[in-house]
Amino acid sequence: MSDEQDLGITESKEYSPGDWYAEVVQKAELASYGPEAMGGFIVVRPRGYALWESLQEHLDTWFKQTGAENASFPMFIPESYLEREKDIVEGFDPEVAWVTHGGYEELEERLAVRPTSESIIAPYMAKWVRSHRDLPLRLNQWNSVVRWEATDTKPFFRTREFLWQEGHTAHASDEEAWAETTLRLDQYQRLYEDVLGIPVLRGQKPEHDKFPGAKATTTVEALMPDGKSVQGGTSHHLGQSFAEAFDITFADEDEVERTAHTTSWGLSWRALGALIMTHSDDQGLVLPPTMAPEQVVIVPIWQEDTKEDVLQYSSEIAAELESSGVRVHLDDRDERNPGFKFNEWELKGVPVRFEIGPNEVEDEEVTVVHRPDGENTVEDRAGVLEWTAEHLDAVYDKLYDAAYENLTENVREASDRADLLGTLGQHKGYVKAPWCGDEACEGEIKDQIHAEIVMVPFEDDAVARTASEFEGERVPEPEHGPEDDCVVCGEDAATTAFFAKSY
Amino acid sequence: MSDEQDLGITESKEYSPGDWYAEVVQKAELASYGPEAMGGFIVVRPRGYALWESLQEHLDTWFKQTGAENASFPMFIPESYLEREKDIVEGFDPEVAWVTHGGYEELEERLAVRPTSESIIAPYMAKWVRSHRDLPLRLNQWNSVVRWEATDTKPFFRTREFLWQEGHTAHASDEEAWAETTLRLDQYQRLYEDVLGIPVLRGQKPEHDKFPGAKATTTVEALMPDGKSVQGGTSHHLGQSFAEAFDITFADEDEVERTAHTTSWGLSWRALGALIMTHSDDQGLVLPPTMAPEQVVIVPIWQEDTKEDVLQYSSEIAAELESSGVRVHLDDRDERNPGFKFNEWELKGVPVRFEIGPNEVEDEEVTVVHRPDGENTVEDRAGVLEWTAEHLDAVYDKLYDAAYENLTENVREASDRADLLGTLGQHKGYVKAPWCGDEACEGEIKDQIHAEIVMVPFEDDAVARTASEFEGERVPEPEHGPEDDCVVCGEDAATTAFFAKSY
Ligand SMILES: [Zn+2]
Ligand SMILES: [Zn+2]
Repeated sequence: MSDEQDLGITESKEYSPGDWYAEVVQKAELASYGPEAMGGFIVVRPRGYALWESLQEHLDTWFKQTGAENASFPMFIPESYLEREKDIVEGFDPEVAWVTHGGYEELEERLAVRPTSESIIAPYMAKWVRSHRDLPLRLNQWNSVVRWEATDTKPFFRTREFLWQEGHTAHASDEEAWAETTLRLDQYQRLYEDVLGIPVLRGQKPEHDKFPGAKATTTVEALMPDGKSVQGGTSHHLGQSFAEAFDITFADEDEVERTAHTTSWGLSWRALGALIMTHSDDQGLVLPPTMAPEQVVIVPIWQEDTKEDVLQYSSEIAAELESSGVRVHLDDRDERNPGFKFNEWELKGVPVRFEIGPNEVEDEEVTVVHRPDGENTVEDRAGVLEWTAEHLDAVYDKLYDAAYENLTENVREASDRADLLGTLGQHKGYVKAPWCGDEACEGEIKDQIHAEIVMVPFEDDAVARTASEFEGERVPEPEHGPEDDCVVCGEDAATTAFFAKSY
Repeated sequence: MSDEQDLGITESKEYSPGDWYAEVVQKAELASYGPEAMGGFIVVRPRGYALWESLQEHLDTWFKQTGAENASFPMFIPESYLEREKDIVEGFDPEVAWVTHGGYEELEERLAVRPTSESIIAPYMAKWVRSHRDLPLRLNQWNSVVRWEATDTKPFFRTREFLWQEGHTAHASDEEAWAETTLRLDQYQRLYEDVLGIPVLRGQKPEHDKFPGAKATTTVEALMPDGKSVQGGTSHHLGQSFAEAFDITFADEDEVERTAHTTSWGLSWRALGALIMTHSDDQGLVLPPTMAPEQVVIVPIWQEDTKEDVLQYSSEIAAELESSGVRVHLDDRDERNPGFKFNEWELKGVPVRFEIGPNEVEDEEVTVVHRPDGENTVEDRAGVLEWTAEHLDAVYDKLYDAAYENLTENVREASDRADLLGTLGQHKGYVKAPWCGDEACEGEIKDQIHAEIVMVPFEDDAVARTASEFEGERVPEPEHGPEDDCVVCGEDAATTAFFAKSY
């Protein structure tokens, strides 16, 4: 990747978003495709994995602050365990990778590579939960899972193996399980809005699209620049179905044996896909300072006679920033010229660049350039810590504001089928419309334009809504009811549905 | 696990170490056995996983400080990739779990669940390394691997799936690869000695027991209280065999195309097994303060009329410790008496206990008890931060010193076969003796007493030895040569071998 001609992005985000995305991911050295014999798998390179670690650090801290503990369950699940789950839910069969041999021997029972771990965690919960004092029980694991679905690989968005976290909890009451469900959804929303620079809409999946066996599947949805929606993370209220199937019961305070209420919640590296796709441009990757491995890159500009002074001045600034916790990199390579360095760090998404030449040294200044829009400012050397923090915040705000504008400009309404299809066809984005609740109505839209109902607003459910720190416009409320006609079939509407094309 | 009768350890460390170990692991809530259909798998519970996270934090920080970057490669490896490796090494065939089906379809090519990742990482290294400027390339991943060997599960010691880290690096010269190999071995030794409280011996595996294809396999060996050795972590100098098989070449400064030199190094959750087994006792788990999730537990002792004062005083102390970074837990449960709490926290291995009753409150004191030996002291409330740090250090030293004594007392010598067998049979531990270098001589000892050569000292190789921070007695030197007779066959000795029974 060190050849000059490899550096530039050649595809256009606007005109060929798919090729552009694949090029950014590879040229910014975030990921590579897996072996040819293994379609659907990717290799995450250090610059990509650093993003995952940054995301992990945020979420993991919040999880632990709110009572979740990490654990590790086997990567395989006996087929009979999945079957047991099948009594209540449709299985993951079509998506499962099966281990059939260990060494030279055929196994007596096939083992599934976990597609998700409910069915292996639930039996242990049943063992560990005896009394109401053992509740709530909140487990989380960071691992990878395999789902043998997609064949057309899209790094971070569509892969057969993906990294994620899966939380699994048990509670004494339905209310507590609801509170847990929305607490985790809040944390996902906070990750997107305060760390990834992406505003999201929150709500729940329609009845027919819930996690199998769940009482409710709640979701945060992010709108990509190409107008498609990404399911950014889901938190499931599982009700008592898993607890009943796996006997998760507890002796309550009144000594009556009761069945627990469980939840599960997961967020995958798809969040990184949304991050890359949302902010990046035709020069390459763009990262918010919250996520960037290097927040500031210093590019010194020297001639032979000014080199010493320029490097001295630059490294003093680098040291001052570093000691106050800024992630700064001084690019003092001899063998590359400043123009090459500008391009390389733009490609790699460093949010803020300092340019320091003999003039800056003499005037005790620094030239500061913002990655997203190239805006540049000359600042006094003296206040470097203060104004660096301000510039980093400013870049975050620019990215968030652009994504926010894209979101708010792309929620439209439709009142009949032609309107719905026309609006989705012309603008993509979200179209909110009255819906009768019948899966068949969504099916018709799916068939005609490959859009679906990505979300319906929460009912006016006190528990589901008041747990949120994110009240307001991004927690839509149902606007339609029996007085409205379903946008597809014309029957009485049951609620509001958000239609969109989706990743 | 909340029933009183479940709390105590019933097995004896001295007389039934295997049952004792299994009981400690389960009753201290570190791990459970996997599903019945899945012998060899375990579930790591939150208290066990917290230990792994603590270990990770130390090693990961050191790795990053010394140039390694984390990445993520697929969990599967195509059979043809393993075959390619087989040209130079004996494969992992007997130990591999095979995925043969994805969903309802049989795969065209079987996929191995990774037993280790050399053969999938090497082809990517070959792609990424073009010039000497791309070297050294240092990748690490934290993941789990599967080896279908053991059937008699011993949590953390012998499991078919285990968590570990695997580092993979490429270098321009043999010297640099040697330096990398010993750098990582140093870090493993540092983990054992400065964090886990376990002194280790370092050296290398005999020729016939090296990692397949490696030039050298270096190891740190820890002696367990039952006299068996644990291979605590291995660092392999792979020479050029993998680089040749997978075409990892680079254009050197003189523009000549050269083959790289590679290393790999791994440390697994077996380190947790060694930790648990080394320090724990018939009351349960014992942890060094460096690893303990709670370093100090405060148990308040009150009557109805003193409760408020005792709790007030205790929580002020807890807050003071917490704000200075001590991991402290105030056990203020109403429904348990102090004796129960003492037992529970002893079982769970908390290194230091504070007992606070009305007397302590009145005299402005704290009673401090050390977990390993029950030693107790009364301290003045005023200096709590200072003396807490001292007590934590003192407990670490007690644990390390006991393990150190066990190690130094159990390195013996033997000059002939009867002596070797007798000493190993009577004392276990290490026996160092002259050895001709022939695998057959080790084989005879293996057959007769299930002991093996766990280590031979480094040759007087400047590169291998000077990289170590740990010079001295725990880096043994070869003491034997042609002037000595092999302890087994009587032929000329080539070096010194350390024989031991081993996990
Ligand atoms: Zn309808
Ligand atoms: Zn011999």
